[in-house]
Amino acid sequence: MDENTFVKSTLNTVKRLPKRGHYDKDTIYQILDQQFICHLAWEDQGQPYMIPTAYGRREDTLYVHGSSKSRMLSALTDGRPLCLVVTLLDGLVLARSVFHHSMNYRSAVIYGHAREIEGDEKMEALRIISDQILAGRWDEVRPPNELEMKATTVLAIEIDTASAKIRTGPPGDDDADYDLPIWAGVLPMSVTYHDPIEDPAMRFKLSVSTSVSSKFKQ
Amino acid sequence: MDENTFVKSTLNTVKRLPKRGHYDKDTIYQILDQQFICHLAWEDQGQPYMIPTAYGRREDTLYVHGSSKSRMLSALTDGRPLCLVVTLLDGLVLARSVFHHSMNYRSAVIYGHAREIEGDEKMEALRIISDQILAGRWDEVRPPNELEMKATTVLAIEIDTASAKIRTGPPGDDDADYDLPIWAGVLPMSVTYHDPIEDPAMRFKLSVSTSVSSKFKQ
Repeated sequence: MDENTFVKSTLNTVKRLPKRGHYDKDTIYQILDQQFICHLAWEDQGQPYMIPTAYGRREDTLYVHGSSKSRMLSALTDGRPLCLVVTLLDGLVLARSVFHHSMNYRSAVIYGHAREIEGDEKMEALRIISDQILAGRWDEVRPPNELEMKATTVLAIEIDTASAKIRTGPPGDDDADYDLPIWAGVLPMSVTYHDPIEDPAMRFKLSVSTSVSSKFKQ
Repeated sequence: MDENTFVKSTLNTVKRLPKRGHYDKDTIYQILDQQFICHLAWEDQGQPYMIPTAYGRREDTLYVHGSSKSRMLSALTDGRPLCLVVTLLDGLVLARSVFHHSMNYRSAVIYGHAREIEGDEKMEALRIISDQILAGRWDEVRPPNELEMKATTVLAIEIDTASAKIRTGPPGDDDADYDLPIWAGVLPMSVTYHDPIEDPAMRFKLSVSTSVSSKFKQ
C-alpha cells in the first residue's frame, strides 16, 4: 500500500467478481474525471437518502454544491459518513444465455465525509464544479455575486476510501453455448451531445460560445 | 390523494424548487420506464452503501437481481429501508450567469423495502429486468437453468413513497443579465447506441438479432 492506492477494508473491498475491482487512485480518478453527475447517499436515523448531483474533483477532494436550504447539504455538513457513486455505462454485453448477459461499465464508489467550505476555497470549488461540467464556461459568464454566494452551500468531500469496478470486452459464455446459433456481442453506448438550442430570449445574434462549440470538435 | 398519486410526507416532499416536484405515478413511472440503471442505497449501522444496478418495473413493483453472494442483496433481504434513484440527464442549461446554470433532467426517487422472491415470480422478474434493458432479447437466448437460478437472487421492491423532479426548457436569468452579450441556451444530451460489436468467438455468420437491430430503427 502506498499513497497512490486506497487501503482495502471491509468497506471498499469488491467482493463479487474481485478481478473487476481496482483501488489505485489513477484508475478511480480517471473515472471521476469523465463524468460530472454523481449519486450521493447519506443516512438519517436508519433511513437512507440519495440525490443525483453535479460534482468536481481536484486532487484528493470532491466538491458538491447546492442551495443553502438543501436537505442534503444541511444533513451532510455535520460530517456524517457518505457514499458517492460515479457510473459510466459503456455498453450492453449480449451473451448466448440470459445468465451471462452483463454490461460494460466503469464505476467508482467513494466513502467519505463532507465539510462546508467558505471564502476563496468556496469560489474556487464552484469553478472546479463548473469546469468539470463544461470546461471554459465559467470565464464566459457573469461570476457569482455576494448574494448568490450566500444562497449557495459548497461542500468539500474528503475521500476516506474508494474502489472502482470495471468490465470491458465481449461476453463470456458457457463452453457448450458457443454452439448455439445466437448473435452475441456488445452494443456500445455513450452519452452524446446534440445541436445547441439557443435561448429564445437572446437579445443578440451570437455564435455559440467556445465552451459549447468545443464539445463538437472531436 | 388517490391511488395514482404517492402521499406527500417529510420523506418524499421536494423542498428545493417545489414546482419541479411530481408525485403522480404516471410521471414517476414514465421516468422509470425510460431507464434501466438505477442507484440503490441502504444503510448498515450508520454507514450508507450504494451500488449502480439494473432494474425492471411492472405495475407498482421494481425488481433488481444479482449474485446470491452479493453484499447488497443479502443486506436488503431483511426488509430495511432503501432508497432507489433513477436519473435521466437531458441537457446542460447554459445561463448568462454562473449562478443560473442548471441541467435539464428527469429523476425519480423511490423509498421502499425489498423482499426476496422465488419460483415463477423470480423467473418472471428476471424477464422483466431483461426486457427493460433490451426488449425481446430474453426470447432470443438460452433461458436460465436450475443452477443459474440458484446462483441468482432476485428482490422485489415495494414502493412506500416516491417523487419525481423534472426540469425542462431554457435558462432563467436575472433581468439585468439579458443585456449581457453572452450566448445562452441548452446543450441537449442523450444516451446513444453505437454499431454493435460482434463477439470474436462467434462460430456462425449471423446478422445481429432483432432485439439489437430494433435499437436502430427510429
